[in-house]
Amino acid sequence: MSTDKPKTLKLVGLRHIPRIKEGSNLSLLILKSARRQLFPIKNNDIVVITQKIISKSERRLVDLRSIHPSSEAIKISQLVEKTPQLVQLILDESKEVLRVRKGVIIVKHRLGFVCANAGIDHSNTVEHDPDSNYVLLLPKDPDKSARQIQVEIEKATGKQVGVLIIDSHGRAWRNGTVGTTIGAAGLPGLVDLRGKQDLFGYTLKATQVAAADELAAAASLLMGQADEAIPCVIARGFPYPLREFHLNELIRPDEEDLFN
Amino acid sequence: MSTDKPKTLKLVGLRHIPRIKEGSNLSLLILKSARRQLFPIKNNDIVVITQKIISKSERRLVDLRSIHPSSEAIKISQLVEKTPQLVQLILDESKEVLRVRKGVIIVKHRLGFVCANAGIDHSNTVEHDPDSNYVLLLPKDPDKSARQIQVEIEKATGKQVGVLIIDSHGRAWRNGTVGTTIGAAGLPGLVDLRGKQDLFGYTLKATQVAAADELAAAASLLMGQADEAIPCVIARGFPYPLREFHLNELIRPDEEDLFN
Repeated sequence: MSTDKPKTLKLVGLRHIPRIKEGSNLSLLILKSARRQLFPIKNNDIVVITQKIISKSERRLVDLRSIHPSSEAIKISQLVEKTPQLVQLILDESKEVLRVRKGVIIVKHRLGFVCANAGIDHSNTVEHDPDSNYVLLLPKDPDKSARQIQVEIEKATGKQVGVLIIDSHGRAWRNGTVGTTIGAAGLPGLVDLRGKQDLFGYTLKATQVAAADELAAAASLLMGQADEAIPCVIARGFPYPLREFHLNELIRPDEEDLFN
Repeated sequence: MSTDKPKTLKLVGLRHIPRIKEGSNLSLLILKSARRQLFPIKNNDIVVITQKIISKSERRLVDLRSIHPSSEAIKISQLVEKTPQLVQLILDESKEVLRVRKGVIIVKHRLGFVCANAGIDHSNTVEHDPDSNYVLLLPKDPDKSARQIQVEIEKATGKQVGVLIIDSHGRAWRNGTVGTTIGAAGLPGLVDLRGKQDLFGYTLKATQVAAADELAAAASLLMGQADEAIPCVIARGFPYPLREFHLNELIRPDEEDLFN
C-alpha cells in the first residue's frame, strides 16, 4: 500500500498460434508464440486459453451424422429448431435441462456450470467438412487439461504459472456473452474477503470475489469471437496469490441457488 | 491482422485518489492521480470508476434512522434478517422483488438490472457514524454521471475517452461477485459480431459480446473490495471503437428473459 508503483494488470494476446489439430502440443505452441512476441512467460503469469483449441487438440470434434437421436432429442429438436442429432449431443453432455426455447437449450453441463447448448460449438470447425456436419464439444476434463498445460509450461520455463480455460457464456437477465471459467489450474477461483476490513474498519460480511471469472472476462475481451485468431492471452499482474484450483468453488450448489 | 504488434490491454489502478466527499470533483482528482502515476490519459482510454465514489460525490448517503418502514418492509425484514429501514430503502430503489431469502433480497433495480439488495452498500460509509447508521445508494443516474465525467475529462485533456461505472454483482448459478456495468458513456455495451465470419468462413449466428461487462470485470480485479483504496482504473487497449452508450443495451427485456 505504501509503494508508489501503480497496480497494473497487463493482458497480451498471442497472435502466432497456428491452427490447432488433434495432438497439437499446446504448451509448446504457446511458449513459442509468447517468445516470438517478446513476451516470455514470467513467474505468476496466468495463461488464459479458449476452450476451442483445448477441445481441438483433444479430439472433441463429433460428426453429427454418427449420432442416433433418442425420442426425447427428437421432441426437443422440434421446439428449438436444432437438428435431433445436435440436441442428442447436448443432452449427452448435460446433467439437466433447465429451459428450452427457440434456438437455445439452457442446461446444467455435466461439468457443473449452467450454459447454453452444453457449450457445443458449431463455428471454427468447418475445415473438416464444408457442410459443417462437425461440432466441437467442451474438453472432457478442463481442470485436468489445465493442470497438464501448467505442468508442461512450468517444466519448460522454471516459472510458476496459472492456467485458465475459458468459454463465452450468456447470463441470466443481461444481454451478451462474457468470458467465463470452465476449468483452471494454479489460481484461485474465488477469493474470500470475508473478515477483511474496509477502509473505515467495518468488517465486510459476505464478499467473495470470483477472481478467475473476472480474469476470464478480461482475457475474452482480447480474444474476440470470430476471425480474431487470438486463442491465448498471457495475463501479468493477477493480484492474488496463486494456489490450487477446483471448478466447484465457482459453482453454486443447487440447494443454494435461487434460479434453477 | 497483418501487424506483428501484440494486442494488449493494460489496466492501471489509480492509487492517489483521496477520500471522496459530497461535491468532490471526481474528474479532476482522477486526472491528477493519473498524472502523478505518470500514466496520463490518452485517446481511447476507458476510465473505470467504482459506483461508491460516484455515489459519495453525489450525496447518496442515507441515514437509516430517517426511514419509516412500511408494513411490507417490516414483513420482509423478518424473513431476511435486515432492519425494516434498510428493507424499505431496498424496496424504494427497486421495480420488483424477484427472490427473498435470509441475508439477501434479489431485486430488479429501478435502473433495470437485477442485483442483490438494490446495490445498497453498508461498507466504507461509517466514517459518518460509528454505529453505521448510514448506507450508500447507487448513483441516481449512472449514465448521466458517466457522461458528465466524460465531458469534463475530454475538455481538460483534449482526448476522446469512455467512462464506465461499475459495481460488484453476484450471478445466478455461480459463486462470487464480478465487476458489472451499471452505467457508462462513450463505449459500446454490446458488440454485435453477428454476420461476421469465423476463421473458416462460417457465419456466426448469434454472438453479441458484452464488452463493457468484460471490461468491468477486468477493472474490478484491480480494485479489490475492501481496503485496497483503488476506486478508479484506467484501461488502455479496449479493442472496440468508442461510441454512444445506453445501459438498456445490456439489460435483457423481461419478455426475453428465461429466469425471472
